[in-house]
Amino acid sequence: MIDKKQLLLDLNQVREKSPLVHNITNYVVMNNTANALLAIGASPVMAHAMNEVEDMVAIASSLVINIGTLSDDWVKAMLLAGKAADKKGIPVILDPVGAGATSYRTETSLLIINECKPSVIRGNASEIMALVNSQNRTKGVDSIASSDSAIDAAKILAKINGTIVVISGPIDYITDGDQISEVKNGSVMMTRVTGLGCTATAMIGAFAAVNSNFFEAATHAMAIMGIAGELAALKSEGTGTMQLHFLDELYKMSDSTIFEHLKV
Amino acid sequence: MIDKKQLLLDLNQVREKSPLVHNITNYVVMNNTANALLAIGASPVMAHAMNEVEDMVAIASSLVINIGTLSDDWVKAMLLAGKAADKKGIPVILDPVGAGATSYRTETSLLIINECKPSVIRGNASEIMALVNSQNRTKGVDSIASSDSAIDAAKILAKINGTIVVISGPIDYITDGDQISEVKNGSVMMTRVTGLGCTATAMIGAFAAVNSNFFEAATHAMAIMGIAGELAALKSEGTGTMQLHFLDELYKMSDSTIFEHLKV
Amino acid sequence: MIDKKQLLLDLNQVREKSPLVHNITNYVVMNNTANALLAIGASPVMAHAMNEVEDMVAIASSLVINIGTLSDDWVKAMLLAGKAADKKGIPVILDPVGAGATSYRTETSLLIINECKPSVIRGNASEIMALVNSQNRTKGVDSIASSDSAIDAAKILAKINGTIVVISGPIDYITDGDQISEVKNGSVMMTRVTGLGCTATAMIGAFAAVNSNFFEAATHAMAIMGIAGELAALKSEGTGTMQLHFLDELYKMSDSTIFEHLKV
Repeated sequence: MIDKKQLLLDLNQVREKSPLVHNITNYVVMNNTANALLAIGASPVMAHAMNEVEDMVAIASSLVINIGTLSDDWVKAMLLAGKAADKKGIPVILDPVGAGATSYRTETSLLIINECKPSVIRGNASEIMALVNSQNRTKGVDSIASSDSAIDAAKILAKINGTIVVISGPIDYITDGDQISEVKNGSVMMTRVTGLGCTATAMIGAFAAVNSNFFEAATHAMAIMGIAGELAALKSEGTGTMQLHFLDELYKMSDSTIFEHLKV
Repeated sequence: MIDKKQLLLDLNQVREKSPLVHNITNYVVMNNTANALLAIGASPVMAHAMNEVEDMVAIASSLVINIGTLSDDWVKAMLLAGKAADKKGIPVILDPVGAGATSYRTETSLLIINECKPSVIRGNASEIMALVNSQNRTKGVDSIASSDSAIDAAKILAKINGTIVVISGPIDYITDGDQISEVKNGSVMMTRVTGLGCTATAMIGAFAAVNSNFFEAATHAMAIMGIAGELAALKSEGTGTMQLHFLDELYKMSDSTIFEHLKV
Repeated sequence: MIDKKQLLLDLNQVREKSPLVHNITNYVVMNNTANALLAIGASPVMAHAMNEVEDMVAIASSLVINIGTLSDDWVKAMLLAGKAADKKGIPVILDPVGAGATSYRTETSLLIINECKPSVIRGNASEIMALVNSQNRTKGVDSIASSDSAIDAAKILAKINGTIVVISGPIDYITDGDQISEVKNGSVMMTRVTGLGCTATAMIGAFAAVNSNFFEAATHAMAIMGIAGELAALKSEGTGTMQLHFLDELYKMSDSTIFEHLKV
């Protein structure tokens, strides 16, 4: 059950406050992520050098860590920034891209969880399951499990780490370990555009910057993603034009669009 | 002469098997490359850390190495991954971006050829010529030679290394050192969109993952690229919208589109 | 006051000569930057390895240095390339992205200015002010000052360093320390697309490669950006489709478009 009024309030807060969202993310999606944050009204910045991540965290309202194209230097900066964000008390959002595909990704994700105490972790079903059971495999960065099959793993992950866990899929599930919210909007075409999962994580960064109830913030960010993706798919012949219509829909997102299209 | 039935078979195999294509590629085109692979039905992953490239190769069906924004750490990972792929027996596809522009690019390309034994090498005419005659120059990453002028160099390169060589241009030439196939589809606008050559290389990675006749696989991938580019150009006012229409065309590519538009 | 004839001459020179513009730029905008340069008729190349930046400068007609996602290795390469470009006598264009947001960015920008003697520096108001008064702050990479408030700082920066300074904003100001030109074209939607500032800097690189009057070159590049952005915004529902229409407008830019739309 999604509270539409609170969702609208969060969206308006993002647009009014234009929170600075510091991203340490992967090369593939940096551009899309930045554009999605700008389209919804937030202010993105990308910075990954050890020399400056703490200074950037100091002026940021949330930190998004995404391991999609990780390497040692970047992981060091993620840990440094994540610990600074945790200390400062701003939300850290983690996207464990490809956890389960290689042990390096699984172990790095677990290290970041332990050291940076993310407020929200968002992944696909395979990734979330791999974080709980390291025997679970992922096909590259694509899920090979259905999203509902990961609910138990998500609850465990949330409970143990005192965090919110989001499983992206045909239905998105958001849990704090006890309660679960569902986002039913979306389109299967979204799985054929690279980085929309990463964009969802960044969007959670924007919403968590303005609503300290991270369960709500994550749910609302996923709802906005789902509505924008669904409307964009309707007007797109393929996954190329869909990318841009998606950004247009974020940019145009209004109270009436949400009221008309949110599936509850 | 392109065998339409085999082309359709390859395309359907890509869509059914959705092969995992591991890319170690350049920053400029990562997003486009991933989206093109997703649009055609393959499953892309980008991973370049020494810590994980061998693990990623272990679950991949082909490896694409592209030196477009190379540096020492990346070259090390390319060699490590390429040797693992060669040992495992999955195809390695090389894109020697800018070979001939700097000696670092020419030498790195030759090193990768020697150590990783690529199944297919795809470049523009200047790049292919630079790999055979290191005196040959390239203007940055753009060709300054016509594609047919590189046919002899391509044959030599193919023969010496037991590989398939693809020359991109107004007509694409594909050779194993003896036979030559030609792809006549395409549009001059494709040269004004960054990374469509790199996308072609990635597409060969998808097709080589499902057809072990790499001469056919490379030819079919280039044909699909050419048809999609040609149709996209027809409906685009400029090189911006063309990028997205191109992805749409890949996504929508059907048997009837191929039958109607393939130039033989 | 913009001389339309000289603007058209510069544009035609870019298209005829297709100058090789060497970019050492940030991960977020590499793709857009390359596509914008291709759309206007220039030939972009991205290269950042210490092993090759001097060789690439040797064949380039201008060098664009953009610190948007800086780190130590990249800064070293920027300095090496910048000094080689200065020595060779081709223009260096600097984009001090996020100067004022962290001291690392401010100090790196000043280091590049001192060591590479850029012909043009382009930034938003906050960035330009931070280069003159290091107490001045920037919100991530977005400006928190109006563009006219930075005119005095721009003049000082230009005078001290013998360079052209461009302040991007609702009105763009270009100064050599004495005279000021203004570009009034543009759209507020441009601030909601990531990297259009970086694209402007790259575009200056293309124009400075063909017109050694860098004050004119910078003014003309900004005018082309403004016209393309303004026309793209008119036909876009949001900031997604706008990105592609913007590239289309660059690609289609004609004498009559300029005569009809340039605001003087």
